[in-house]
Amino acid sequence: MDTVPMFEGYQVGYDIPALPGMPESAIQTPCLVVDHDAFFRNLDVLRRFCASHQVRLRPHAKTHRSVDIALHQIQTGGACGVCCQKVSEAEVLAHGGVKDILVSNEVRDPLKLDRLARIPKLGTRIIVCADDPENVDELSEAAQHNGTTIEVLVEIDCGAGRCGATPGREAADLAALIARAPGLVFAGLQAYQGSAQHKKTFEERKSLLDSAVRMVSSTVTELEHRGLRCDIIGGGGTGTYPLEAASGVFNELQCGSYIFMDADYNRVLDPGGKPMGAFDNALFILTSVMSHVKNDRAIVDAGLKVQSVDSGMPVVSGRTDVEYLKCSDEHGVVADPACALKVGDKLRLIPGHCDPTCNVHDWYVVVRNGMVETLWPVSARGRSY
Amino acid sequence: MDTVPMFEGYQVGYDIPALPGMPESAIQTPCLVVDHDAFFRNLDVLRRFCASHQVRLRPHAKTHRSVDIALHQIQTGGACGVCCQKVSEAEVLAHGGVKDILVSNEVRDPLKLDRLARIPKLGTRIIVCADDPENVDELSEAAQHNGTTIEVLVEIDCGAGRCGATPGREAADLAALIARAPGLVFAGLQAYQGSAQHKKTFEERKSLLDSAVRMVSSTVTELEHRGLRCDIIGGGGTGTYPLEAASGVFNELQCGSYIFMDADYNRVLDPGGKPMGAFDNALFILTSVMSHVKNDRAIVDAGLKVQSVDSGMPVVSGRTDVEYLKCSDEHGVVADPACALKVGDKLRLIPGHCDPTCNVHDWYVVVRNGMVETLWPVSARGRSY
Repeated sequence: MDTVPMFEGYQVGYDIPALPGMPESAIQTPCLVVDHDAFFRNLDVLRRFCASHQVRLRPHAKTHRSVDIALHQIQTGGACGVCCQKVSEAEVLAHGGVKDILVSNEVRDPLKLDRLARIPKLGTRIIVCADDPENVDELSEAAQHNGTTIEVLVEIDCGAGRCGATPGREAADLAALIARAPGLVFAGLQAYQGSAQHKKTFEERKSLLDSAVRMVSSTVTELEHRGLRCDIIGGGGTGTYPLEAASGVFNELQCGSYIFMDADYNRVLDPGGKPMGAFDNALFILTSVMSHVKNDRAIVDAGLKVQSVDSGMPVVSGRTDVEYLKCSDEHGVVADPACALKVGDKLRLIPGHCDPTCNVHDWYVVVRNGMVETLWPVSARGRSY
Repeated sequence: MDTVPMFEGYQVGYDIPALPGMPESAIQTPCLVVDHDAFFRNLDVLRRFCASHQVRLRPHAKTHRSVDIALHQIQTGGACGVCCQKVSEAEVLAHGGVKDILVSNEVRDPLKLDRLARIPKLGTRIIVCADDPENVDELSEAAQHNGTTIEVLVEIDCGAGRCGATPGREAADLAALIARAPGLVFAGLQAYQGSAQHKKTFEERKSLLDSAVRMVSSTVTELEHRGLRCDIIGGGGTGTYPLEAASGVFNELQCGSYIFMDADYNRVLDPGGKPMGAFDNALFILTSVMSHVKNDRAIVDAGLKVQSVDSGMPVVSGRTDVEYLKCSDEHGVVADPACALKVGDKLRLIPGHCDPTCNVHDWYVVVRNGMVETLWPVSARGRSY
């Protein structure tokens, strides 16, 4: 070829891994591929679930860090808004047109507090969590300084042992403080049981969730005694959302991974001991065989720099004859006992853990019927500060 | 503050984690911090080592993916050029002014071959590896099509079991093919023993390297019989470079991690069983305590999205009273038995594995005497395709 193909000012290869209209076989690997139809099926499955269970859906944008996907979730996926974890993510989402954002995390740094308090000036509702009385003063001061309003949830530790105030009286004291603070609105409770999501058996997840629900209920009772009402009682993830939905207490679900799924969530089992199966794998790392000198192993171009292996190695999609065994920074080793692969062959890998895998890529290449449909930028990639 | 501070068009917080002149305590976390003095000491230690051992230094830019650092390595660190692993990295480095680049890897995709063959048009010497006769034809065709010259090393598998031709006759056959191919120049051997680098004891590393050196030597002898001369016999990493340097066979070292070091390399021992100690830790993840509701554990803002934990958890620098225990996507849990930390306190974490950790950040914040000296972009971050 004599000129390098371009797309909206981007050069294929140098800037972007693919062009719309390209067949999947021509995509520059390794890169992230989103299966268009599986993605929109997942969007629809959770939309219908939430509608039938009369809970709001506020999906977690920390999974995808993408304005395009957040807007799809709101416009066609039934979401009332999104969650994110960082002020920098909220800034990107708000600039991209998302109008209702919960930072489901604490914000303590002075400049970050100021940045957070500026977001409502973009016309975006901003909600944040607090677990400490000093933080209430900090948030109030930042809101007043900017002439804006910040809605605040009391985060309670309902079993994960990470952030969060003690449920019950301590949480209610904090809520009362927020309710009195100028520039702030007390908006409810953040009650995410993160350590339950990836437990493999339904019984383990249910036991942890039953305990979490009791903590949320006792806190709500304590708040009612003080005349404090919760607009939002939020939590739930892809591993437990049916339990929160059925609790009669939670009114917003915060699932993130449902939109993509990953190899670890594929191992989470339903009450009958089978993979949950409500959602399809919609996210893949597309990789190419780049060396095959040994007959029984192929070397592929996807290593540590295109994924996070904290939850295990990726799984080769749609094939049982080959297995991704291990990786170094830029290489993956694939067992190929029958020498079925040849150099240039492409494999779709289901990432072990979707959230931190998305965070090392700049683009989602959206593929439909074997052709590139469009590209979505991972617009808040790297926005961790 | 009424306006958000800017630096070269970038807004602090939204775009960049710090401003030059800021104290370290004001940096927006989590982000990467480079200790200026330790960095330049490391640069100098390896420069002097290579000069005294009369081997060339071609450091691996895959570690840092930064034009600024590559140019420091060349201009003051004694490097003759750099290595990288991907065509996209080579493109960024060449556009940034690096004039001598070895892609220490195979390139097989048609568009990537074309992209590689265009790089010499920027005035940059380009060298690549091959381990398969078909690849020689592909490279020759791409070079001829673009009217450029590509130098090619035969990669041999000297024990890592990844890419690479069989040492000896097979490797020499490939070299002869390259030497005859239009548009290509046979430039020597790539002999990196990647699986030896992180072995903890000196004896393990030496045993693997002795074996690798024998394979290189026998290949060189085979090449001499055919009248083929090696300009480059390259290999070596931060764990083994003194062995390659002393081998009498290798003439280029490809260390990458030496410039930063990491927690895993800190555990690599010298012949006396002590940490090697030639290089200082120059790279840190700066993190802030963001929640401390439980007395004995602090929650920090650095989780999976700002590091790779494939080689273990990060180590808190300069403190023995606290320990980074585990992480989730955006949080780290730090054991703080004496409740010594408070919200807002900053810790420097030594990453478990530097290369894939750098690849999730956009900026190196260079700190000297407690103040931000400058920022270097991670210019080839994410360039894996």
